Amino acid sequence: VTLLSTARDLRRRLARQRRGLFVAEGARTVQQLLTSTLDTVGILVDADHAAAPRIAPLLDLADDRGLAVQLVTPDEFASAAETESPQGILAVAAIPTRSLADLALVPTARILLLDGLQDPGNAGTMVRTAAALGAQATVALPGTVDLWNAKVVRGAMGALFDHPAFADTWSALDLFRQRADLPIWAADAGGPDVSLLAPPARLGLIIGNEGAGLSDEGRARAEQLVAIPIDPAVESLNAAVAAGILLYQLRR
Amino acid sequence: VTLLSTARDLRRRLARQRRGLFVAEGARTVQQLLTSTLDTVGILVDADHAAAPRIAPLLDLADDRGLAVQLVTPDEFASAAETESPQGILAVAAIPTRSLADLALVPTARILLLDGLQDPGNAGTMVRTAAALGAQATVALPGTVDLWNAKVVRGAMGALFDHPAFADTWSALDLFRQRADLPIWAADAGGPDVSLLAPPARLGLIIGNEGAGLSDEGRARAEQLVAIPIDPAVESLNAAVAAGILLYQLRR
Repeated sequence: VTLLSTARDLRRRLARQRRGLFVAEGARTVQQLLTSTLDTVGILVDADHAAAPRIAPLLDLADDRGLAVQLVTPDEFASAAETESPQGILAVAAIPTRSLADLALVPTARILLLDGLQDPGNAGTMVRTAAALGAQATVALPGTVDLWNAKVVRGAMGALFDHPAFADTWSALDLFRQRADLPIWAADAGGPDVSLLAPPARLGLIIGNEGAGLSDEGRARAEQLVAIPIDPAVESLNAAVAAGILLYQLRR
Repeated sequence: VTLLSTARDLRRRLARQRRGLFVAEGARTVQQLLTSTLDTVGILVDADHAAAPRIAPLLDLADDRGLAVQLVTPDEFASAAETESPQGILAVAAIPTRSLADLALVPTARILLLDGLQDPGNAGTMVRTAAALGAQATVALPGTVDLWNAKVVRGAMGALFDHPAFADTWSALDLFRQRADLPIWAADAGGPDVSLLAPPARLGLIIGNEGAGLSDEGRARAEQLVAIPIDPAVESLNAAVAAGILLYQLRR
């Protein structure tokens, strides 16, 4: 089995789950992967780009580490890549084993809970935002895009590699809350102005789907709805922008 | 000249500037356009979608207004559309005449200044965010993507139609500031924590390019740099998320 055929297969969510592998595309993302704690399996390179200034040092680094490097034709590379400008390089790496069961909450924690987020770019931006603003973890609840989708990985700009972001279930969240005190708030236009509320030391913040908002499961678990006041002429904020403003306003 | 050939031509920035026209794609965006103050020239529809529940009412509305409606084949429609899922409908409309010279500042104003923003999705999200958070205008300074690019229009979710967003020059900004008191702040990781500063009643806020940050022109005009404190393991926030947090923190 070649790295090329593996990378092609990993475009399917089921294949990523079965193999426990994902693909990181682009020079900067591959560089961030190689300097993270994740296990990289190998690197696939478009032979036409192997000598490029951004690519060659990464191949040297991979060589030093004894990682597999496969050079392929531009057409072969394109058949494996998923993002808009993969820059002729992608890496295959192991999806880290993470879950709510393994998460030890610090006294003042923020956990971002993604409830049915569908847009890979938005989801990646939200993981990056959560990591930047000091959230302790990001959990993709059912109905959310796979965080190990190549477009999410690219959008997260490396934040997925070290920030504990992972998929888990609503029942795992319920069990987690029996063990650790974690009040849950949820973004909803019907809630009061977030700036009027004092957040608890630990907080789980649910962000709902881009169009449909909170799911029934998310709404049922929210102890407090919160809103960002906006001009009534605008329907809503972008989900990633809303998540950023709320995590900022509710920071500790 | 048919609407189809006009729409195809409008994919080029120069054609949009010369003709003073732009394209709005997707059912929701076309609906928002038709309920805005902008002048719509006509509507182009993929004949296979003309009877769809989201499309048919828009064609009725266009008919009531005496707007031109052209039905084309799916291939023809695809040759004119630019966004990912145009949903079989697009409208051609007049770019509104807007500039700093026409802008009358209210006593407490926020103006978002885009300095070399390149990503159309980011730029659209920023216009939407500025409108939602009550900014009085959004100005695209040189080096910024054309705000009337179909992807920006789509990303702005209708906010471009009523919120005064437009392109202008650095010298127009300089002239504007001789007329109206408008202190200028700029987002930069080297600045102090934005939450420690009291904003002036009127404020122009510069957001720089996604990768390179502020231009020399932008930096030269900034009286105050401001930063959002982030985890040092993360390189930066997404530009639209940063703009949202800053406009929120600096709101009046």
